[in-house]
Amino acid sequence: MAIMKGRCVVAQSGGPTAVINASACGVIQTALARGEVFTGVYGAYNGILGVLEEDLFDLGQETPQAIEGLKRTPAAALGSCRYKLKDLSKDRVDYERILEVFKAHDIRYFFYIGGNDSMDTADKVSRLARELKYDLVAIGVPKTIDNDLAETDHCPGYGSVAKYVATAVMEAGRDTESLYTADTCNVIEVMGRNAGWIAAATGIARRTEEDAPHLIYLPEIPFSADRFVADVRECLKQLGRCVVAVGEGIRDAEGRFVSEMGGSFSQDSFGHKQLGGVAEALQRIVEKEVGVKCRTNKLGLCQRTAMHFASLTDRDEAYRCGQAAVEAALAGERCKMVTLVRQGSEPYNYCCGMGLADLATVANGEKVLPREYMNEAGNHITTAMRDYAVPLMRGEVKIEIGPDGLPLYVRLRRQMVERCTPLRSH
Amino acid sequence: MAIMKGRCVVAQSGGPTAVINASACGVIQTALARGEVFTGVYGAYNGILGVLEEDLFDLGQETPQAIEGLKRTPAAALGSCRYKLKDLSKDRVDYERILEVFKAHDIRYFFYIGGNDSMDTADKVSRLARELKYDLVAIGVPKTIDNDLAETDHCPGYGSVAKYVATAVMEAGRDTESLYTADTCNVIEVMGRNAGWIAAATGIARRTEEDAPHLIYLPEIPFSADRFVADVRECLKQLGRCVVAVGEGIRDAEGRFVSEMGGSFSQDSFGHKQLGGVAEALQRIVEKEVGVKCRTNKLGLCQRTAMHFASLTDRDEAYRCGQAAVEAALAGERCKMVTLVRQGSEPYNYCCGMGLADLATVANGEKVLPREYMNEAGNHITTAMRDYAVPLMRGEVKIEIGPDGLPLYVRLRRQMVERCTPLRSH
Repeated sequence: MAIMKGRCVVAQSGGPTAVINASACGVIQTALARGEVFTGVYGAYNGILGVLEEDLFDLGQETPQAIEGLKRTPAAALGSCRYKLKDLSKDRVDYERILEVFKAHDIRYFFYIGGNDSMDTADKVSRLARELKYDLVAIGVPKTIDNDLAETDHCPGYGSVAKYVATAVMEAGRDTESLYTADTCNVIEVMGRNAGWIAAATGIARRTEEDAPHLIYLPEIPFSADRFVADVRECLKQLGRCVVAVGEGIRDAEGRFVSEMGGSFSQDSFGHKQLGGVAEALQRIVEKEVGVKCRTNKLGLCQRTAMHFASLTDRDEAYRCGQAAVEAALAGERCKMVTLVRQGSEPYNYCCGMGLADLATVANGEKVLPREYMNEAGNHITTAMRDYAVPLMRGEVKIEIGPDGLPLYVRLRRQMVERCTPLRSH
Repeated sequence: MAIMKGRCVVAQSGGPTAVINASACGVIQTALARGEVFTGVYGAYNGILGVLEEDLFDLGQETPQAIEGLKRTPAAALGSCRYKLKDLSKDRVDYERILEVFKAHDIRYFFYIGGNDSMDTADKVSRLARELKYDLVAIGVPKTIDNDLAETDHCPGYGSVAKYVATAVMEAGRDTESLYTADTCNVIEVMGRNAGWIAAATGIARRTEEDAPHLIYLPEIPFSADRFVADVRECLKQLGRCVVAVGEGIRDAEGRFVSEMGGSFSQDSFGHKQLGGVAEALQRIVEKEVGVKCRTNKLGLCQRTAMHFASLTDRDEAYRCGQAAVEAALAGERCKMVTLVRQGSEPYNYCCGMGLADLATVANGEKVLPREYMNEAGNHITTAMRDYAVPLMRGEVKIEIGPDGLPLYVRLRRQMVERCTPLRSH
């Protein structure tokens, strides 16, 4: 089978991670090395928005050093977005525009690094292309700190956030242990709207009963304020202190967000639910019902881009996923997402292969934390979770440090490609 | 002059830092090596509380590995407290109790690692001892992330928190840069009730105009909501995004805490002002007055114990301060605190010597950020601040990592010494 020649475009989507640039690097380096197939390697500025607005830049104009530097640079160096395309059956305008831009630049390969919304977009663009007889290869690269993509054992980005939040909770635990006579209880809020993978990862920090976190709450298990109060009381009885890790999206048995229960809930300016505030909700419960001082901590964005303490395993897998996407395209695959396939079941016998899954299957799936990864009481992890997560957190990424003692992260030049279609109206 | 023989006790006080254990290590290793003077090296469990309650442990019973491990272990391994002694002129009970315990164990040397309250305690215990003709040497070791102690160029603990918060803000800045089309503004709240040293340190992360933080607000400069709105608008105009670093204790021109202005203020269960919430106060202003989405991040405890990315310069200086305290005692000094004396004014020609200051002078002083370390608008740092802070942030502490990918921190055995006084009633 002759390999189709043409340009490729790579785009990043959704919330940044510490290693999404490593995936981009894997795509870019592998594609640039195959100039006989890829007549150009473009980046889309700010994800699919960059395609819609024909904001494309030529990655061939970047220095090899800058591209290599992506491996140690957090967040999305190509730019990302949260733009959600309409349903293809209802509104084809966006999809047709994407194809118009692809055609105008002879883009035949679309590498999209993102979560399930992105896989859905790639799938639909791909289907429309087939319908319109435009030969296009779309391959997805998994990315999400939430670790909630179907079909893949885990997601690049997760191992790094897991390592970082577990370490932060471990350190906050030592703080609480030092000063429990004054600051007895601490709540640390981590990300996770629907899936508790990040909150559960903090559990790895507890090597002994002394260690934080002492309690973990996550969205998959309905939250009961009464049980929480009992849990905290028991912990205080045992240790004289209590460190709680909580996923932002915990809900009560009726499905209401706990962050809303305390009256602190507010919508943001766009009408989205602001889930920050769950730590304060738990703080109010502890101070009122248990009667000890409780502090709150919210790692926020800092958790998902913490390249200064990222997982080397995660970073290397992220790179390999990007590389595998290009190799899959060269092997004639289309409409697939690269998956991570765990080999070896023991935590210290871990290795990871690459697989492929249909974009459509990934787009419609979601992987929540298996119930057996949490204990019966639903307030801490089991050995199964430890065995699952530990291999993903191992190894330290070597970053570069400047003379000011801080990390040196790269920026791309983003040499824009001249537009050749009429600008899209908004 | 013959050197007085006797036991020594070392205690840690106040909020933990990444390197307060390095100072303890400096005291312990130096004292253990001089067995001909120090007939025993004790630790007080939970700071001065441990002396009051005669909860002392024998540091000679610890393994050399555990003591050496203190150099890479955050928080207060001896235990800390926030217990504030009464004024000596009004109530001598606590001070007399301290001396009773010291006498009972023939403790002749008191090494107290802490901030100005601790220096005040050490000074008063020392004065009472003189009055009661009990020969006691009290030497203080500076410690505070707040960097607000008088007489010393800077404080052990500050360089590490500075390095960490600057890095976290840098990384959050890359996140915002990636996703400004969705999350346009980010506020990162850092510690600092009265002094803006920590908030100012984040400014080091801005190497170019692109870099975060774009705006910094701190307690020393009265906060104006109107100017803040104008600052954010200007930043959005220039860059399309805005990352704000803010010290928790910012106040308006009337001295009211900004965290109280939005109605979110609440006292904690002990009647203390809870300053957390300033990020949310700024978020409300941005969303209401500027009309863009704003996220909040609160590093909380995680910032002050972030040994996983501590400053080697800070750690080494912390150790040397502990060492110098014992050496000062051996040289016949008493009632002094070790100080750090900067030598060489240029940032790349930095070295640091040790000095001594009177405990009483330190106890009554406070060092706020010099106005010239901030720009005229009061919303970012100047070169003077950069030159001051950068040398303190350099170098990475080599930590040990376990097979689970997380740091290995030590715990002391704390082999308790038998009590020999009647237990103090509370």
